[in-house]
Amino acid sequence: MNVIELFKKLISTKSETPDDGGLLDFITEYLEGFQAVRVDSNGVKNLFIYKTFGDGEHLCFAGHVDVVPAGEGWDTPPYEAVEKDGCIYGRGTQDMKSGVAAFVQAVKDAENFKGTLSLLLTSDEEGEATDGTIKVLEYLKEKEMLPDVCVVAEPTCEEVFGDAIKVGRRGSINGYLTLKGKQGHAAYPEKAINPIHLIAKPLANMAGVDLDDGDEHFAPSKFVVTDIRSGMQVTNVTPNELKMMFNVRNNTKTTQKEVRMFVAKQMDGLDYDLRLTQGSYPFKTDESTKLVRMIDKAIEHVTGVQPKHSTAGGTSDARFISAFGVDVIEFGVKNDTIHSVNERTTKKEVEDLYRVFTSLIAIWE
Amino acid sequence: MNVIELFKKLISTKSETPDDGGLLDFITEYLEGFQAVRVDSNGVKNLFIYKTFGDGEHLCFAGHVDVVPAGEGWDTPPYEAVEKDGCIYGRGTQDMKSGVAAFVQAVKDAENFKGTLSLLLTSDEEGEATDGTIKVLEYLKEKEMLPDVCVVAEPTCEEVFGDAIKVGRRGSINGYLTLKGKQGHAAYPEKAINPIHLIAKPLANMAGVDLDDGDEHFAPSKFVVTDIRSGMQVTNVTPNELKMMFNVRNNTKTTQKEVRMFVAKQMDGLDYDLRLTQGSYPFKTDESTKLVRMIDKAIEHVTGVQPKHSTAGGTSDARFISAFGVDVIEFGVKNDTIHSVNERTTKKEVEDLYRVFTSLIAIWE
Repeated sequence: MNVIELFKKLISTKSETPDDGGLLDFITEYLEGFQAVRVDSNGVKNLFIYKTFGDGEHLCFAGHVDVVPAGEGWDTPPYEAVEKDGCIYGRGTQDMKSGVAAFVQAVKDAENFKGTLSLLLTSDEEGEATDGTIKVLEYLKEKEMLPDVCVVAEPTCEEVFGDAIKVGRRGSINGYLTLKGKQGHAAYPEKAINPIHLIAKPLANMAGVDLDDGDEHFAPSKFVVTDIRSGMQVTNVTPNELKMMFNVRNNTKTTQKEVRMFVAKQMDGLDYDLRLTQGSYPFKTDESTKLVRMIDKAIEHVTGVQPKHSTAGGTSDARFISAFGVDVIEFGVKNDTIHSVNERTTKKEVEDLYRVFTSLIAIWE
Repeated sequence: MNVIELFKKLISTKSETPDDGGLLDFITEYLEGFQAVRVDSNGVKNLFIYKTFGDGEHLCFAGHVDVVPAGEGWDTPPYEAVEKDGCIYGRGTQDMKSGVAAFVQAVKDAENFKGTLSLLLTSDEEGEATDGTIKVLEYLKEKEMLPDVCVVAEPTCEEVFGDAIKVGRRGSINGYLTLKGKQGHAAYPEKAINPIHLIAKPLANMAGVDLDDGDEHFAPSKFVVTDIRSGMQVTNVTPNELKMMFNVRNNTKTTQKEVRMFVAKQMDGLDYDLRLTQGSYPFKTDESTKLVRMIDKAIEHVTGVQPKHSTAGGTSDARFISAFGVDVIEFGVKNDTIHSVNERTTKKEVEDLYRVFTSLIAIWE
């Protein structure tokens, strides 16, 4: 098989999260001569597969074989790799079976390498992500097999293939605030404690405010209110409490502690509860590291494009890898149809992604 | 029958709004010698009944025979007039069959009067109030029979019988505001228009604000927010629109126009819809009028108490009567158990209320 044939095989296999559709077994067989370790956890399938060529560094490619559900409204069957006008259509074509096909084929075709090449694959990235990549990393740490560097092949390009890699990601802090008042009749506001009135000024001081100035890599950590609700949907009673949800996509300057202090300062004197959760922590890979220099070089070699170094966007499993002290970047195809109906990528991007990974392996010293 | 026997008869008749339970027919028969006109409208029963003694002024007593539903949890059957420890228990004992019993008995017992005595009774005060008192007033206006002065016998007393009459009421303006934004992902606030962020500063400038200074009779007209809701109860999406409800208990200085202008000033530049409705308009009867002087005198004569002149509280049908240019006040028993389980009034209050009305009729010149 070449990379496109492999890609079509992956697309034609339904693997809605957390089902791997048998793909991890297929890849294990496909990469004959590699050492395979399964780190399954609570029904989630995880594969670590590697080949040691010599004593050099350990370069890992990471990704997921699960996809979000196809949903309704497709022009083509979402689990058939339909080729049309230079594109291949199907669920997962961008996110991220293109990346998986490219790196599986690239390591299979690698004839020489100074150290260890490996793949870290999960079927639990689109779901809770609690039994996926992180479990493999814990296993590898215990076995002292953590890679030196890692490329996550999530789709990162914006306008043209090769124009962007991710060298970091913001974290995400969720806030759930409950403000207590005292219910009353609208005609007698002096007898009630109206939580909508209480929140008004603090809200004006919090909504959309930047909690830091950001830096050259990251936008400021902004306080974004996503939900507010209070009242019984009547005009004659004022409510007992108010609930508010917010989100802070935080950079490395702002943590939960700063968020809690910011809210506490604005809500001083009010009777409220605040619960904070954090789905992901921010990370940033130094741009002077070998990994960033090498992937830039490989991309420019294949495409002629100098990729920009971005930290924008949502979260990926790179956050877990970074937390284990591994230099990590993300690079993959364009991401303009991910999670949409008629998800598609161009055939050329998949071929070029394969070439970039092959080139990275070839030039790695 | 004396007033207590009449009162017990009224309480023992179930007349949940808008059902009169046959009470208007009963009162028509009871007031033998009075002229009765039925002004029923859309199933609501309304009675205007009067007796002309001479060419003098027309004094009307107004009220409703309907009650709010009894609900569960009573210690005594709500539609039996149970006497216990000097009190009479039952739905409507305060609101307002005590008042109806007192004025029906007072006009029945009146042997002499300089002008016309009348009663205006409806079975639609606790409901929508659209087919009740206002329909009778329209009829009377057409027939050029509107009274000169009117006493609404709603319960008005606070601590002791005789301590308060209502010489006016605030109006009530309801506001329904929809603020438009543009839905987006919490990670990319710059691509969305977040209506919670947009409302924050205007809300701080509106919530709890007095729209006027009030005067010696009325509290200021306060902007009271009763409901706010926006969002999908998630932390990763910012909402498309925000809905807010508010209420202004307005005095005679503030109208819908001022409310609309106030909101427009605060929301300048935002894309919003505002719907205003007005359930009632404020009114104020001049305290130097004969009606106020006379009812004060009658109350002091019977109770020894000088009533205060209040405009506080919710709404009553007095708002309609005032709008027809009729001097109107409200006076009745204490109102501490209205609309509650175990609603009750003291027997003495009902007797004294009858005496006050009898006295008013007697001293009216």
